[in-house]
Amino acid sequence: MRVIYNEQMADLAHLLGEMAGLAGTAMDRATQSLLQADLALAESVISEDDRIAELIAQAEERAFALLALQAPVAGDLRQVVSAIQIVQDVNRMGALALHVAKVTRRRHPNHALPESVNGYFAEMGRIAVSMGEGAQEVLDTRDPERAAQLNVDDEAMDDLHRHLFTLLMDRDWKYGVAAAVDVTLLGRYYERFADHAVEIGRRVIFLVTGELPPDPDVEV
Amino acid sequence: MRVIYNEQMADLAHLLGEMAGLAGTAMDRATQSLLQADLALAESVISEDDRIAELIAQAEERAFALLALQAPVAGDLRQVVSAIQIVQDVNRMGALALHVAKVTRRRHPNHALPESVNGYFAEMGRIAVSMGEGAQEVLDTRDPERAAQLNVDDEAMDDLHRHLFTLLMDRDWKYGVAAAVDVTLLGRYYERFADHAVEIGRRVIFLVTGELPPDPDVEV
Repeated sequence: MRVIYNEQMADLAHLLGEMAGLAGTAMDRATQSLLQADLALAESVISEDDRIAELIAQAEERAFALLALQAPVAGDLRQVVSAIQIVQDVNRMGALALHVAKVTRRRHPNHALPESVNGYFAEMGRIAVSMGEGAQEVLDTRDPERAAQLNVDDEAMDDLHRHLFTLLMDRDWKYGVAAAVDVTLLGRYYERFADHAVEIGRRVIFLVTGELPPDPDVEV
Repeated sequence: MRVIYNEQMADLAHLLGEMAGLAGTAMDRATQSLLQADLALAESVISEDDRIAELIAQAEERAFALLALQAPVAGDLRQVVSAIQIVQDVNRMGALALHVAKVTRRRHPNHALPESVNGYFAEMGRIAVSMGEGAQEVLDTRDPERAAQLNVDDEAMDDLHRHLFTLLMDRDWKYGVAAAVDVTLLGRYYERFADHAVEIGRRVIFLVTGELPPDPDVEV
């Protein structure tokens, strides 16, 4: 029983990691579509979302089957419960990448972003991919140090996000209200993406150490 | 065993409902604080968040204990898994009310909102409270019709949200970029609050009917 449980739980964690990685890749492609006003790329992110939705359903069913058939207890049970929670985080990460791609599509053939903020989004996109990969590694290795690294990435994301707001609030902002609205929402999408990756790290740390680190949900 | 399970599961559902109701009340007070630039009220929402966090932890532990001690199967097991997922939705609803209160605090003694959009937020606040209550009722009664009503409320919220964006995008918007940024984020908070209430309804419908209604996550 225990052997089967361990194997199936490792498979489930691996699937969750794969999904986090996919969400990171989706965010990368969505970011590229945004920077280049590339409609075809945006559409590919949008259509790939079905695949993520399928994996989500699959992961939920596997977690359920683990509970139903293996009846894990104690720490094993906690792992499955965490997996159920992590599915929701990964799901949101995918949804946020989708949101970014949809902004590209909505503004096409125009660029959604004024050129002067491209650098910020390129960097936020880079961090998002790295955090997707980080969450994947953490799910595969359960390494608390790697999980803590997600917080460092998250702080970098928050810094960029804060800078972006300083730009928006500056009276020298000359791109009008419509662009400011897009930039505001897009910034929020990246910041939330990072929060969910951190949340995955927190849950893994909790499994390994029994202590839940403080909630990362940040100020705008 | 079954009797104890039923009792404990009903208690847990009731606790989740109470939390959804509390999140609705918090959103109501946060909305009032926003409309009146009432710092004391905003602070009361912010400090009450600790209480919601405590209930969240309590609900998670109760769900875990149910799994560990009652080892439910089939439909019973599905209920507990749904409860674990619903905790996260309720948690976000509380966090979104908190975000609204924090915007009030950040802008105080100024009003965060230009007067011309007050009516929109008053109405979005009203719908949010009603959806918090709706989610609570659904959790208590498991009535699929009441759950479906949440979708109607959500559509009303989306309509308001869309109107708000039309105002922002209008070249007659005369309140500047900073106010537009606040309105954009605030609008998003209300819209997400509604999405989570709908999500709770979906999960309950799934428990009762075995069919998961389509994802409500909306376009901006």
